[in-house]
Amino acid sequence: MKFIHTADWHLGKLVHGVYMTENQREVLYQFVDVVGEEKPDAVVIAGDLYDRSVPPTDAVELLDEILFKINVELKTPIVAIAGNHDSAERLSFGSSWYKHSQFYLSGKLTNSFDPVRINGVNFYLVPYAEPGVVRQLLEDDSIHSHQEAMKRMIGKIEETLNPNEPNVLVGHAFVLGGVQSDSERILSVGGSGCVGAELFEPFSYTALGHLHSPDAITHEKVKYSGSLLKYSFSEAKQRKSISIIEMDEKGNFEHRYRSLTPSHDMREMEGYLEQLLDPQFYEKERTQDYLKINLLDEGALIDPINKLRQVYPNVLHLERKIEMTDLKKKQSFNALRSEKKSEIDLFEQFYNEMTTSEFTVDKKDAMSEIIDKVLKGAGSR
Amino acid sequence: MKFIHTADWHLGKLVHGVYMTENQREVLYQFVDVVGEEKPDAVVIAGDLYDRSVPPTDAVELLDEILFKINVELKTPIVAIAGNHDSAERLSFGSSWYKHSQFYLSGKLTNSFDPVRINGVNFYLVPYAEPGVVRQLLEDDSIHSHQEAMKRMIGKIEETLNPNEPNVLVGHAFVLGGVQSDSERILSVGGSGCVGAELFEPFSYTALGHLHSPDAITHEKVKYSGSLLKYSFSEAKQRKSISIIEMDEKGNFEHRYRSLTPSHDMREMEGYLEQLLDPQFYEKERTQDYLKINLLDEGALIDPINKLRQVYPNVLHLERKIEMTDLKKKQSFNALRSEKKSEIDLFEQFYNEMTTSEFTVDKKDAMSEIIDKVLKGAGSR
Repeated sequence: MKFIHTADWHLGKLVHGVYMTENQREVLYQFVDVVGEEKPDAVVIAGDLYDRSVPPTDAVELLDEILFKINVELKTPIVAIAGNHDSAERLSFGSSWYKHSQFYLSGKLTNSFDPVRINGVNFYLVPYAEPGVVRQLLEDDSIHSHQEAMKRMIGKIEETLNPNEPNVLVGHAFVLGGVQSDSERILSVGGSGCVGAELFEPFSYTALGHLHSPDAITHEKVKYSGSLLKYSFSEAKQRKSISIIEMDEKGNFEHRYRSLTPSHDMREMEGYLEQLLDPQFYEKERTQDYLKINLLDEGALIDPINKLRQVYPNVLHLERKIEMTDLKKKQSFNALRSEKKSEIDLFEQFYNEMTTSEFTVDKKDAMSEIIDKVLKGAGSR
Repeated sequence: MKFIHTADWHLGKLVHGVYMTENQREVLYQFVDVVGEEKPDAVVIAGDLYDRSVPPTDAVELLDEILFKINVELKTPIVAIAGNHDSAERLSFGSSWYKHSQFYLSGKLTNSFDPVRINGVNFYLVPYAEPGVVRQLLEDDSIHSHQEAMKRMIGKIEETLNPNEPNVLVGHAFVLGGVQSDSERILSVGGSGCVGAELFEPFSYTALGHLHSPDAITHEKVKYSGSLLKYSFSEAKQRKSISIIEMDEKGNFEHRYRSLTPSHDMREMEGYLEQLLDPQFYEKERTQDYLKINLLDEGALIDPINKLRQVYPNVLHLERKIEMTDLKKKQSFNALRSEKKSEIDLFEQFYNEMTTSEFTVDKKDAMSEIIDKVLKGAGSR
C-alpha cells in the first residue's frame, strides 16, 4: 500500500504582504503530476490546508480544483484533517458528501475515532483541536494540555485498534522527540503546547502536520512531511518535500522524499548595497527569488529598497545589519534565552516592554497568584 | 413531477443584533418534515442560502446539516444557486462532488448553460451575478444592466432549449411585472437593477429568489417563493411560505403554498407604555414574539425599553411616534415619493441630506454629465 504524506499547504498565505497563491498553484500542479506518476492508494494531508479560517476566495477555488483533480480525475482517495489554521467548521462543510468519492475530510473533531480503511491500512484522523474542546468532547476534566488531550484520544483509539494491522495516525500537533526538542522548547513555556512522540507508539506510522520542516523531528515512525513551500525567511534553509510511504501488511514501511520546485525560491542575501547592485554580481543570481536582504552598509542610504527592487523585484524584506534598535532587540532576546528567570520575572519584563504603565506591587501580587495556581494545576497532573 | 420552490434562507442573519440561527433551525426542521411528507422529486433553492459571504460557523453547520438530511437521508435531489448575499466562490466549493448525489449547486456563474434534468424537467440554473461579470463571461460589452445580462443569458439558454419539454429557470433577481412594479420602482433609479418578467417567457416556470414576499409579483409563471422567515419589520405583514409545484410533461403546473410556522413571530405593536405594561392587555399577547414597539406617549419616559422587556423579552426596536426627527424623515420621504423630480434634482436633494458641503455649480455640472451619459446609454439599448 502506497500513500503520499503532505501537510501545511497554507493556501491563501500572505508573506510580507505578498499572496503566495500563484506559487502554491504552481507547486500543487507539480504535486498533481507526482500523484499521477506515483499512483498512490491515498494522499494524506495532515492539516493547515488553508492559512486562515476565512481564506481568500482564490485560495478556496484553488483547493477545490486541486482536490478534484486528485480525487475525481485521478481517482485517488484523499485523507485530510483540519489544522490549527483551518476553521474546523467551515472546512467540514460537505464532508458527508465527499466520502462517497473516498475523500475523507475530518474538519471538526468528533467523538468517533473509527478509522478510514484504505487498501488494508487503517487511517485514524485526529484533526487539530484545542485541549478545551477535547475536554468537553470526552467529558474529561483532567485534560488541560495538548499532551493530555492527545493521550486520551489515542487511548480511545486503542480501545478498538488491531495491532496486527497497519495503522496510521494523521495528526496536526507540535510533537517533540529527537534533536529539535531543545531549540524549540522556548516556543512553548510550560510545555502545554507540546506532545511527546512516545504517545504515537501504537501506530505503524504517524503522519504529522504543523512544523514546517521534514527534519523537525528525527523519529523512526513519527514524521512531519514539512510544508508545501517556504513560508517565512526562518524556513529559508529548510528543504521542502513530500513523503512517499510504501507499507506492507504488517505496517513495515519504506519512506522516501520527493521534492517540488517553485520557480521562485525564498532566501536571504547579505552584502553592501553597491555590491548587490553590481551587474557582475547579480548576473549570477536568481534575481526573481523572494528575498530578505541584509545590508551591511553603515550610515544613511538613499531609498535602498527601491534601488534593490530594480534588480531584485521580489525583495520582501530589507534589514540593516547595524541598527541600534536591532541590536537592542537582539540583546534583550539573548538575555531572555540565557537567563533562567522565574515566570513572574519573565512576565514583568514582558509587561514593561509592552506597556508604558508601571508594574505595581498590586499587579505583581495578582499575577503571582495566577501563576501559582497554574503551576499547582500543572503539578497535580 | 413535483418540486418545492424555496429561497432566501439567509442563514446567519442578524436582525437588530439578534442572530436568527435558532429560529432558522426550527423552521428548517419543519421544512425537512414537509420534504418528508411531500416526497418531491426535487427541492429548488433560489439563492441567498446565507446572509453574507462569510457566514458565522453555526450557520455553515446548519446548512450542511439540513442539506444532508434532504439530499442524502431523504434522497431528494437539490437544485440550488447563489444569491447576491452568498459568496459565489465559497459556496461553490465541493459542488463537483455534490452532484454525484444529485445535489446541484451553482455558486459561480459559468459559461455553460446546460440544464440539470430531473424526472423529465430541465432546470436552468442562473446564479446571481453582477452585470460586469456577465459582460466578461459572455464577452459582450453591451451588457451594463441586470436586464441586459439576463436577456443575454436567456438568449444563450434558448439556443439549445427544447420548447416542447418542461423547462424551469432558477434565478435570483429583482423581477418586475404585475402589481408591485410601481411601488418598488423607487428602489432602483434608472431601472438598472430590475429585470422584466417578460424575459422569462420561454420557461414553463421561473423559480425566483431575492424579494422576500411571495406576493412581490403576480405573474402566472414567474414567481417568488418568499423568504424562509420575516427578516425585517418591513416584512411584518408578509406571509411566509414555500411553494409546491406539480408539473406535467408539457410544463403545465399546479402551484400551492405551504407555510412554516416559527414559534416567534416578528411584528409591530403600538400603544401607550402604561397600556402595554398592563397585565390585562399583555396576557392576551404572544409576548415572546420579536417586536417593534411604537410608543404613542409624548414627553419623557424613564427607561421604557427595559420596562417593556420585562414583559416582552424580544423587543428588538422601540420607536417613539412623535419625534421631530421622525416627522422630518417622513416628510422628506413623502415629498420624494410624491414629486416628479428629475434625476439631477433627486441627486441634489440626496447630496444635501447626506453631506454638509455645498452642491456647487461645478458639482452639479459634473453630475449632470454623468446622468446624461447613463440615460443616453439606457436609451440606446
